[in-house]
Amino acid sequence: MSELKNDRFLRALLKQPVDVTPVWMMRQAGRYLPEYRATRAKAGDFMSLCMNPELACEVTLQPLERYPQIDAAILFSDILTVPDAMGQGLYFETGEGPRFKKVINSAADIDALPIPDPEKDLGYVMDAVRTIRRELNGRVPLIGFSGSPWTLATYMVEGGSSKDFRKSKAMLYSDPQAMHALLDKLAQSVTAYLNGQIKAGAQAVQIFDSWGGSLSAAAYQEFSLAYMQKIIDGLIREHDGRTVPVIVFTKGGGLWLESMADCGAQALGLDWTCDIASARSRVGNKVALQGNMDPSVLYAKPEAIRAEVGRILASYGHGTGHVFNLGHGITPEVNPEHAKAFFEAVHELSAPYHQ
Amino acid sequence: MSELKNDRFLRALLKQPVDVTPVWMMRQAGRYLPEYRATRAKAGDFMSLCMNPELACEVTLQPLERYPQIDAAILFSDILTVPDAMGQGLYFETGEGPRFKKVINSAADIDALPIPDPEKDLGYVMDAVRTIRRELNGRVPLIGFSGSPWTLATYMVEGGSSKDFRKSKAMLYSDPQAMHALLDKLAQSVTAYLNGQIKAGAQAVQIFDSWGGSLSAAAYQEFSLAYMQKIIDGLIREHDGRTVPVIVFTKGGGLWLESMADCGAQALGLDWTCDIASARSRVGNKVALQGNMDPSVLYAKPEAIRAEVGRILASYGHGTGHVFNLGHGITPEVNPEHAKAFFEAVHELSAPYHQ
Repeated sequence: MSELKNDRFLRALLKQPVDVTPVWMMRQAGRYLPEYRATRAKAGDFMSLCMNPELACEVTLQPLERYPQIDAAILFSDILTVPDAMGQGLYFETGEGPRFKKVINSAADIDALPIPDPEKDLGYVMDAVRTIRRELNGRVPLIGFSGSPWTLATYMVEGGSSKDFRKSKAMLYSDPQAMHALLDKLAQSVTAYLNGQIKAGAQAVQIFDSWGGSLSAAAYQEFSLAYMQKIIDGLIREHDGRTVPVIVFTKGGGLWLESMADCGAQALGLDWTCDIASARSRVGNKVALQGNMDPSVLYAKPEAIRAEVGRILASYGHGTGHVFNLGHGITPEVNPEHAKAFFEAVHELSAPYHQ
Repeated sequence: MSELKNDRFLRALLKQPVDVTPVWMMRQAGRYLPEYRATRAKAGDFMSLCMNPELACEVTLQPLERYPQIDAAILFSDILTVPDAMGQGLYFETGEGPRFKKVINSAADIDALPIPDPEKDLGYVMDAVRTIRRELNGRVPLIGFSGSPWTLATYMVEGGSSKDFRKSKAMLYSDPQAMHALLDKLAQSVTAYLNGQIKAGAQAVQIFDSWGGSLSAAAYQEFSLAYMQKIIDGLIREHDGRTVPVIVFTKGGGLWLESMADCGAQALGLDWTCDIASARSRVGNKVALQGNMDPSVLYAKPEAIRAEVGRILASYGHGTGHVFNLGHGITPEVNPEHAKAFFEAVHELSAPYHQ
């Protein structure tokens, strides 16, 4: 493996000094970029793009070409590859989001689920990681990722997206044992999957807990955070002589930062509802923070984007431990020139905070 | 006006002793009830039901008939009556949610907006309040309500519901002056509207800040909370010899309870992501709390509903200052027998906490 030329992102996650605040953007390889839409059209559909390592590599690198400020690449894939490999049959209906052919209805359905082997059952992801690492050639670190057990469970029980998580919450409250059995299997599967990504070359991993924030405070601890902690306990923490940092991102988890900071992750992702100064004082020295500009600010004028970046940098204040990001993924309608204003502002405005 | 026979709800909001924890449910007059669906069919559509004081009264009273435990009635109406009265042309597309014929695009559009006169322009709401008060005959207090300025502004600028508040946030960040002008007009309109409801007989009022939680911490203070505070400053605080308590409910506002507790309201509504014990200790004696069961728990078995009610009561602990509610409105698919389990459990299980 080639030497890492820019390790700002990994250093900030480990709270080591940096020259400027590192930056990347959730969904940075996405539909707002015309070059992404062109590659996706070439692939056919979204899952064909995920399953083609060369094309997945191509879209992963596109934002780095356009925005030289980006300090980390993130594997192009979907959070639902693991349940798909468990035999649930992932597919996408236009305008409908992800759907599963099979739906989990009973304890028997859960018993029957296999734990996928990363190289055998999710080889296309491992190949994508290897291809991207080769093509990155040490330019910036590569982030691997997975959905959290609770997030994956909601899709598997609902059969797709949901507004109120009717079936998954009915199971959680009426038959907690079945839900725990499902989450336990998912935690085992995600642990193996992320370790597979790390062995293939991922230099940091992020757990996307997209729907943990839909739970009550008590249910979050028991049904989401506990299983992310279980995963982290089983992860390879050092590879190729470097620590592999873990980022936990629970959207809507701002109320629970204190307990999240104890889950073993090096960093917590913050959505934009958290004041980052108060988040920093609440988590103390336990973890680094990643975030947290409202992605909708990218609809505003470039001057307004720059001002909001400046406000968040000032709010975090001096010193390392901050990876700049949005508080959620960039949306398809954003003008790429506005993303440029965002990336430029982070490096330009953050230098004084690292002197 | 007839003597109030059950003032438990008002007493709890004012932190006066009660025998059991009072309970009501957001959207308690709603589609989960077959009798509601029958009346709505009679009215034609949703807005015709809101605009017919006799039928609005009928649906307001239906849940009280079915569930004798309910300690408060809430005016049946929509949060968007105020922008409709400002000339925006509210209508509902089946399955699409609310829409406006006119959309706010510019400072000139904002300048042209009138401040509605409650009796002249929203007389159907005032008539509904008077009719319901007459029919309630002192059985339980009647809650009036409005949407918050920020919440109303999002619908007016987007032209309807939104996932990412693209236009309203672009205005907020790119042209904050225009957004402030709109919010100021809305605050004036809502103040007059709620005072009209109070004069017509509303015994408490709730401000529904449905979309305040979509804002960053900083933007929430400046663009949502500040205008709710402005409204509260202008409200009639005593009517017919009784304090008229104000409840502020920002869905997703759990991170900001300390500042919300200073806005002048007697109570804060909590969604289910807040741990109510920690919320109580954060707000201290400043305000009462209303909430906060996850509405999706109503999809679980009655025993599980009862257990969750018990858990929340225990979490709040001893003493007054708690109005039991869901953390958001009940959903149409809930079995009315499950709502029964909820109402019964609150009174049955809460008595020990008031001894």
